[in-house]
Amino acid sequence: MNVLLVHAHPEPTSLTSHLVEIADEVLQAQGHEVIKSDLYRMQWKAVYDDQDFPRRANKARLSFIEESGHAFANGYQTSDVEEEQRKILAADAVILIFPLWWFSMPAIMKGWVDRVWAFGLAYGYQGAGNTYRYGEGGFAGKRALLAVSVGGPEQDYSPRGINGPLEQLLFPVTHGTLFFTGMQVLPSFAVYGTGHMDTDRMSNAVAAWRNRLERLFDDEPIAFRPQNGGAYSKEHVLDDSIAPNQSGLMVHIADNVGPNGLTESFDSLVATLRTGVTDDAQERI
Amino acid sequence: MNVLLVHAHPEPTSLTSHLVEIADEVLQAQGHEVIKSDLYRMQWKAVYDDQDFPRRANKARLSFIEESGHAFANGYQTSDVEEEQRKILAADAVILIFPLWWFSMPAIMKGWVDRVWAFGLAYGYQGAGNTYRYGEGGFAGKRALLAVSVGGPEQDYSPRGINGPLEQLLFPVTHGTLFFTGMQVLPSFAVYGTGHMDTDRMSNAVAAWRNRLERLFDDEPIAFRPQNGGAYSKEHVLDDSIAPNQSGLMVHIADNVGPNGLTESFDSLVATLRTGVTDDAQERI
Repeated sequence: MNVLLVHAHPEPTSLTSHLVEIADEVLQAQGHEVIKSDLYRMQWKAVYDDQDFPRRANKARLSFIEESGHAFANGYQTSDVEEEQRKILAADAVILIFPLWWFSMPAIMKGWVDRVWAFGLAYGYQGAGNTYRYGEGGFAGKRALLAVSVGGPEQDYSPRGINGPLEQLLFPVTHGTLFFTGMQVLPSFAVYGTGHMDTDRMSNAVAAWRNRLERLFDDEPIAFRPQNGGAYSKEHVLDDSIAPNQSGLMVHIADNVGPNGLTESFDSLVATLRTGVTDDAQERI
Repeated sequence: MNVLLVHAHPEPTSLTSHLVEIADEVLQAQGHEVIKSDLYRMQWKAVYDDQDFPRRANKARLSFIEESGHAFANGYQTSDVEEEQRKILAADAVILIFPLWWFSMPAIMKGWVDRVWAFGLAYGYQGAGNTYRYGEGGFAGKRALLAVSVGGPEQDYSPRGINGPLEQLLFPVTHGTLFFTGMQVLPSFAVYGTGHMDTDRMSNAVAAWRNRLERLFDDEPIAFRPQNGGAYSKEHVLDDSIAPNQSGLMVHIADNVGPNGLTESFDSLVATLRTGVTDDAQERI
């Protein structure tokens, strides 16, 4: 299989870079082809602007959606964007590896998404508006995984921890960015408390990461509900019969609704992420 | 009062730019001093990297936290970052105005946060680790507001809409970025369906925005629970007695827990955001 690693940390000895090295080694040992996008080393242009559209559809007024669609359809994209799209399209799995900065991606990686997720490919697929998204679209059939280096302690991200559960904070990325394009998204991998790693915690984290990588093509994806799978109305609102009287991010996960209607399985998923090595039964969602 | 508008769209005729113009006009008419950070026109450097630290604490290994703290404490920050911090510290309210790209800020604005939110100021306040945050910290006493231009239709962001409720998608920014530093955060303002604005919808949106601006210093902030207000344990986990048996992002909002334990008031808050002009009773959370 082909695996694309997209990563964002300029320090070669950072935990983020270490996670990349381990991924490279483990995946190659399994016979996969590994391609990397080292955004800092590539000096990736983070800011999406008029330079992204050398041949404008409308020179008088810059609309990103209009120009993105025009550039993608006509082969007018910049070469750096085209190259990243080629890498994704050739990949069976895409892994984004980054430090969690303000509960999201560093700007350089956000700019990778902003620029590479073109209209006609990642959204507005086949010129059909919002018809194909959330489980269908230009990146359908690929797996995706976030691997996050988190400075804060794990209890701050526990189900009732003050930051909020990590997987809910990452929902705009896992659901809104990756699943949106058709990718199947695995539960996120996280290492917490990265400012204070001792030898034990580091070796646990490395073992857990190796375990996740070895199962990259076997683990169950997060059960986000596909837009066109019958759960949503034509207006893209969840049908009354599903998770009735509930609302919020978590209703969009199919196996998420426990007997009391709360986020049981998603929380237990987060709980497994908090530990170092997990056993097989625990890891399943 | 002093109000800082930070905005991110390069097109002067975009809705984002229009929201900035209206804010400038309404706030000045009320006697406020308005300062702007037009990130695209400033050619804001989005990527946080070693150039942010011209006088390193550790030349051998780049740790962002260590270097940020060192640079902030010793006056070694770059002048563009210092200038933005001066603007924020002089402001009574900070308004971030941006198009919603992939359910978050454009990279150029994420890079404004990444670089300006320094250790010792926005986090690690007073060198006391996580002691002062979520309601206390370097930006305490200021108000904050997000004004978001959203391409998609409003029902996609309704309580059971497929994208998830907007205010939950923005939680990493409102709670994790703004409230984290001590700011009081108002319910977000949004204009939906910006690709298909007719005259009526535009005039409704403008009226709603003017209304929100006029009440910038009167509206009730989102009732995020302060870290040191008694709701959390020393380990920063919500006390068992509060919102028992619940978890997730919404438990961190004080008036959010209805009799059935779900996200009633937050959803009604989102519902008011979906309308154009709202009446006074509806607008209150």
